[in-house]
Amino acid sequence: MKYFAKIKYLGTAFHGFQFQPELRTVQGELTRACEECLGVKARVTGSSRTDAGVHANGFCITIDAPGATVPADKLPLAIAKFLPEDISLYFAKEANIDFHPRYDAKSKEYLYRIYNAKVADPFERGRSWFLPRIIDDEALDVMRLAAEKILGKHDFSAFMSAGSDIEDTVRTVYSLSIEKEGDVINVRIRADGFLYNMVRIIVGTLAEVAFGRFSPNDIPKIIDSRDRLSAGMCAPADGLYLDSVEY
Amino acid sequence: MKYFAKIKYLGTAFHGFQFQPELRTVQGELTRACEECLGVKARVTGSSRTDAGVHANGFCITIDAPGATVPADKLPLAIAKFLPEDISLYFAKEANIDFHPRYDAKSKEYLYRIYNAKVADPFERGRSWFLPRIIDDEALDVMRLAAEKILGKHDFSAFMSAGSDIEDTVRTVYSLSIEKEGDVINVRIRADGFLYNMVRIIVGTLAEVAFGRFSPNDIPKIIDSRDRLSAGMCAPADGLYLDSVEY
Repeated sequence: MKYFAKIKYLGTAFHGFQFQPELRTVQGELTRACEECLGVKARVTGSSRTDAGVHANGFCITIDAPGATVPADKLPLAIAKFLPEDISLYFAKEANIDFHPRYDAKSKEYLYRIYNAKVADPFERGRSWFLPRIIDDEALDVMRLAAEKILGKHDFSAFMSAGSDIEDTVRTVYSLSIEKEGDVINVRIRADGFLYNMVRIIVGTLAEVAFGRFSPNDIPKIIDSRDRLSAGMCAPADGLYLDSVEY
Repeated sequence: MKYFAKIKYLGTAFHGFQFQPELRTVQGELTRACEECLGVKARVTGSSRTDAGVHANGFCITIDAPGATVPADKLPLAIAKFLPEDISLYFAKEANIDFHPRYDAKSKEYLYRIYNAKVADPFERGRSWFLPRIIDDEALDVMRLAAEKILGKHDFSAFMSAGSDIEDTVRTVYSLSIEKEGDVINVRIRADGFLYNMVRIIVGTLAEVAFGRFSPNDIPKIIDSRDRLSAGMCAPADGLYLDSVEY
């Protein structure tokens, strides 16, 4: 049986999604839980690699588990007691044997949450980027102007951290919205794919637009430079959520 | 100087609000932080006593700190670095010397959050009551009918846990609303005061109304019985938030 499933996780206590020996990872915990629940060897493949501290609302996986007999629609309840409290598997169906959760993705959407108030909120700890300098409505509009310049197909090398050996650095950003809800600024970005730390560097750069270090017209220049040093800071992992994957 | 302040806290890692020697309490942490920040002896008084695991969004305190010179409007930023990450103080003003945050409260509002989905949500862990049996719209309406019977001035002994030496068990419930937002059911209850575990027993009883153990017409009988054993279960602390205090 090959399953397709959607999971949520609170990334705080994980060394990222991807399996690493001796370290607590989402893939490691999932693999163990699947094998305990299904009683057979299981291979878990993810839609993305998220870093330490990054969260997920709608991360997609496949579970290759030859010999497994648990029906896909029973998997969420069956696996619940084997999963740690910081992971949940809330949807499953049978997957086509050829399906790959990463290569077959048409687009992915990330949510980045900024907590923007003078004093930190204990309920937001580890779940957002605490920015105590207030971004007013005018500054939000300037951020939105900058966000528009990021839309479309570009070489996003300037928004990629070192340490990735990827060759094709062209990606298409389909949407980038910035909405304020109470003290939280939600930045949503959907693209056909993302380079290493791309969302976090985009959000860090947009925050620096809000604070006047860059103007919206600097964005095309930053993109054209293909130089990481010309873009803004990398926002912390705490605020980042893989929100959904479209196939 | 005597300060009035509003605080938030994530109750998970506290043995409740009230000071207890050797145990980590909100009052204990606040007193330490106030004394370190203000450089004088401080006495912290709270609007309520919350149990272990109970949270607060708008808990009110006074800080008696004779000799303190930090202006009240500067206190939130000044104290931030002395507070642990699970407490924040976000508003302060000077208090009248006679003001008492508990005795002068006209009403208090608690929020109780129920996470109602088949599979638990890692982001809700410790922050809501996970009820995997689904409460549909019809059952919500039955809960609301039961809630109406709780409104008003009653002897709420049946909704009080043992272990309290309180004599006057009459309280007036001003409002009790039940609203569903996504998978979360928010129960809000405002009263002139609350008996020990009163909100949690009311919520537990309302959940048992949803599941058919009680009907709305049983509520007046439960109240009249003044017998804790006739009411429903005590819902867990995790879902309870002291939301606001009115003076």
